[in-house]
Amino acid sequence: MKTMADAFHHTLKDVYYAENAIVKAMPKMIEAAPDGEIKTALKDHLKETKEQVGILKEVFATIGETAEGEKCDAIEGLIKEAEGIIDEAEGKALGACLIGAAQAIEHYEIARYGTLRQWAKELKNAEGHDLLSRILDMEKAANAKLTGIAVGKN
Amino acid sequence: MKTMADAFHHTLKDVYYAENAIVKAMPKMIEAAPDGEIKTALKDHLKETKEQVGILKEVFATIGETAEGEKCDAIEGLIKEAEGIIDEAEGKALGACLIGAAQAIEHYEIARYGTLRQWAKELKNAEGHDLLSRILDMEKAANAKLTGIAVGKN
Repeated sequence: MKTMADAFHHTLKDVYYAENAIVKAMPKMIEAAPDGEIKTALKDHLKETKEQVGILKEVFATIGETAEGEKCDAIEGLIKEAEGIIDEAEGKALGACLIGAAQAIEHYEIARYGTLRQWAKELKNAEGHDLLSRILDMEKAANAKLTGIAVGKN
Repeated sequence: MKTMADAFHHTLKDVYYAENAIVKAMPKMIEAAPDGEIKTALKDHLKETKEQVGILKEVFATIGETAEGEKCDAIEGLIKEAEGIIDEAEGKALGACLIGAAQAIEHYEIARYGTLRQWAKELKNAEGHDLLSRILDMEKAANAKLTGIAVGKN
C-alpha cells in the first residue's frame, strides 16, 4: 500500500471481511442472549449487518472493484472475545457482558467507517462517502440502542 | 462469571491486560510513524496509557483486588492489525493507516470503559466510577486528536 487509494481499497476489504464474520458469529450470540430485549436488539443488528454487506458492495463498485474480503485480525479477536463470554458467563453477567462485547464490535466498526468516510472525501469519491455515511449512522444508532439497554438494565 | 461484580472484575482484568499490551506495542508504531505530527500524537498517547495503567490499579483497589491482567483476544487482534500495517504500508498510506489503527484501538477502549463505568454505577462504586470517567475522557480526547490529524492530513 502506497497511496490513499490503496489504503481505501485495503481497508474496505478489511471491513467487508469483518461484516461477513459478524453475520456468521451473531446467531451464536443471539442464541446465548439470556433475555428477549437483548435477543431482539442483536437480531435487529444481524439484519442490519446483512444490509451493510450489500451497501459495501456498492462502495466497492464506486472504485471499480468487486467486493472481496481480506482477513481482519481485529474482528477475529473481537469475535473470539464475545464467544469466550458465552462460555464463561451466565445469568446477569452473561447479558451485561454480551451487550459489552457487541458494543466493542460496534465501536470497532464506527472507527473503521469514520476513517473510510474521511478517506472517501479526500479521494473525491462522493458516492462512496455517502454510502459509508449511511453505514456509519446505522452503526452509531445500533451502539446507542445497546447503551440504552445497558443503562436500563443497570 | 455470574454477578455484575464478577463481570466488572473480569473486564477490569481484560482492560488492564489491554493497556499493558498497548504500552508494549506502541514504540514500534511510534518508530514506524512517517511524520513528526503522528509520532508526537502517538508518543503523547503512550505516556497517557502508562498513566491509565496506574489509574486502573486504583480501580482494582476500590474492589479490594490487586491489579492483574487476563489475556484479551480483542486487543491482541487490534495490535496484530496495527503491526500488519507497519509491514504492508508505506508513504502516505502508512501514516493514514497508522492513525486509523490507533483510532480503532481508541474506540475499543472507549467501548470498554463506557461499559465498565456503567457497571461501576450499578455496583454503587462511586470512586471506581470517577476513576473510570477520568480514563474514558482521556481516551475520547486522544481519539479526537487523532481525528484532527487525520482530517488535517486529508
